[in-house]
Amino acid sequence: MSYPKQMLDTYPRTLNVDAGVLAATIDALNDCAQACTADVDDDLSEQNVIELVKCIRLCLDCADVCTATVRVTSRQTAYDANVTKPLLEACAATCKSCGDECERHAQIHEHCRVCAEACRRCEQACRELLGAIK
Amino acid sequence: MSYPKQMLDTYPRTLNVDAGVLAATIDALNDCAQACTADVDDDLSEQNVIELVKCIRLCLDCADVCTATVRVTSRQTAYDANVTKPLLEACAATCKSCGDECERHAQIHEHCRVCAEACRRCEQACRELLGAIK
Amino acid sequence: MSYPKQMLDTYPRTLNVDAGVLAATIDALNDCAQACTADVDDDLSEQNVIELVKCIRLCLDCADVCTATVRVTSRQTAYDANVTKPLLEACAATCKSCGDECERHAQIHEHCRVCAEACRRCEQACRELLGAIK
Amino acid sequence: MSYPKQMLDTYPRTLNVDAGVLAATIDALNDCAQACTADVDDDLSEQNVIELVKCIRLCLDCADVCTATVRVTSRQTAYDANVTKPLLEACAATCKSCGDECERHAQIHEHCRVCAEACRRCEQACRELLGAIK
Repeated sequence: MSYPKQMLDTYPRTLNVDAGVLAATIDALNDCAQACTADVDDDLSEQNVIELVKCIRLCLDCADVCTATVRVTSRQTAYDANVTKPLLEACAATCKSCGDECERHAQIHEHCRVCAEACRRCEQACRELLGAIK
Repeated sequence: MSYPKQMLDTYPRTLNVDAGVLAATIDALNDCAQACTADVDDDLSEQNVIELVKCIRLCLDCADVCTATVRVTSRQTAYDANVTKPLLEACAATCKSCGDECERHAQIHEHCRVCAEACRRCEQACRELLGAIK
Repeated sequence: MSYPKQMLDTYPRTLNVDAGVLAATIDALNDCAQACTADVDDDLSEQNVIELVKCIRLCLDCADVCTATVRVTSRQTAYDANVTKPLLEACAATCKSCGDECERHAQIHEHCRVCAEACRRCEQACRELLGAIK
Repeated sequence: MSYPKQMLDTYPRTLNVDAGVLAATIDALNDCAQACTADVDDDLSEQNVIELVKCIRLCLDCADVCTATVRVTSRQTAYDANVTKPLLEACAATCKSCGDECERHAQIHEHCRVCAEACRRCEQACRELLGAIK
C-alpha cells in the first residue's frame, strides 16, 4: 500500500473526503512534481534547449504548485475549503498549461511525452478531488 | 535596494508589469512565508498549543502557498496568465484565512499579531499584482 | 513503472549513477516527505499534542529537507558532487533524528510507526546513493 | 524592523542563539533563494542560454537548499543540532558552488553578478551561524 494511503488510514479522526480519492490525488501530485522537476533537467541536456525555454519555465511552475498542493491537501486537521479549493483550481490550471506545452514536444522528446502524461493525470485528479470535497 | 528589485532591474527583456509593484509583492510574499513558518514554531512553544491547532495548520498552508507563489511570480520568461492569476487568487484567499485566524490570537500572543499583519499585507499585495498584470 | 524510473530512462545523456538506485532513492525521499507532512497533521489531531511537539518539529524539518533533496538528486545535468553529497548527508541525519523521535511514539500512535518506517527507509536510501555516486 | 527579527523577538521561550545573528542568516537565506530563482529566469531569457546551463542547474539547487534551510533555521522549538548543523554545512557548500559559477558569468550578465553576491553573503551567513550555535 502506498504511503499516502497508509497515512490516511491511520488518521486519528474522520476524513473530510473518501480516502481512496484523496490518496490518488496525492499520488498524482507527487508524480507530477517529480516528472516536471526531471523534465526541466532533461530539457537542459538537449541541444535545442533554446526551443524548450517555455517548457522549462512551465515545468518549474508546475513542480512548485504541485509541491504546495500536495502539502495542503495532505492536511485534514482544521480543514478550510477557502484554502484548499482555490489552490486545487490553480493547480489544475497550471497542470493544463504545462501539459499543453510538454505535449508540443512529445513527438521529439520522450521525456516531454511522459511529463505531459503526468500533468494530464494530475489535472484530472485535482478536478476529481474538487468534485469530491465540500 | 532589495534583491527582488535588483534582480528585476537586471532582467534582460521587458517586464510584463511595473518592477516596483512586482518587487513589493515578492517582498510581501517572502515576509509572509517567513512569518508563518516562525509563527508555527512560536505556537508549538506555547502552553496552550491545543487551542492553536487551527492557527498552526493555516500557517503551514500559508507558508507553502506563499513559497510557491513567490517562485512563480519571480519568473517573467514565457509568462502565462493562466498559471499566475489563479495562483495569486489562491494565495490571497489563503492569506485571508490565515490572517483571520492569527488575528483571533493577536491579543494573547504577540507573534500571532505580527503574523496576522504579514498575512494582511501579503493578501493586499497579491490583489494589487492581480490588478496590475494582464 | 514509477515516474522517477520512467523519467530517468528517457534522460538524453548518460546518468552519473545506476538508474535503479537513483529511482529507489527518489521514491524513498518522496515517501518520507509525504509521510512526515501527514504525520504532522495526524499529531495535530491527537489529544496529547503537547507531548508530540518534538515529533511535529522534526517531521516539519524532515519534510522540508527531503523535498529539497528529491529535487537536487533528480537533476543530472551539470552534476556537482559538492552540492549533492553534503545534502544527502544532511538528509540522512535528519531522517535519523526524525525516525528516532517517531519511533518513540510508534506503540501509541500507528501514524508515527508508519512515519518512522518511511524515515528509516529514506535514511538508508540516502546512504546507499552516497555509496553509489562519485 | 524585518519580519525575521520581529518574529524572533516575540518567541515565547529563550532562543538557542543570538537573535541578531539568526535574523541576519534568515535574511541572507531568503535573499539568496530569491536571487537564484530570479537568475534562473534571467538566464532563460538570454540568447546564450546553452552556455548558462550549469548556472541554471546550480541556481535551481541553491534556491531549493536555501528554502529548506530558512525553514529549518527559523524553528527554535525542540532544537536538534544533528539536523541544523549538517544542513547549514550543505547550504554553505551549495552557495559556494553556485556563487563560483555565477561569478564566471558576472562580467557579461549583471544578473549573475548580483546573484553571485547573494550566494557569497549567504555562504558566509551560514558559516557564521554554524560558529554561533551549539
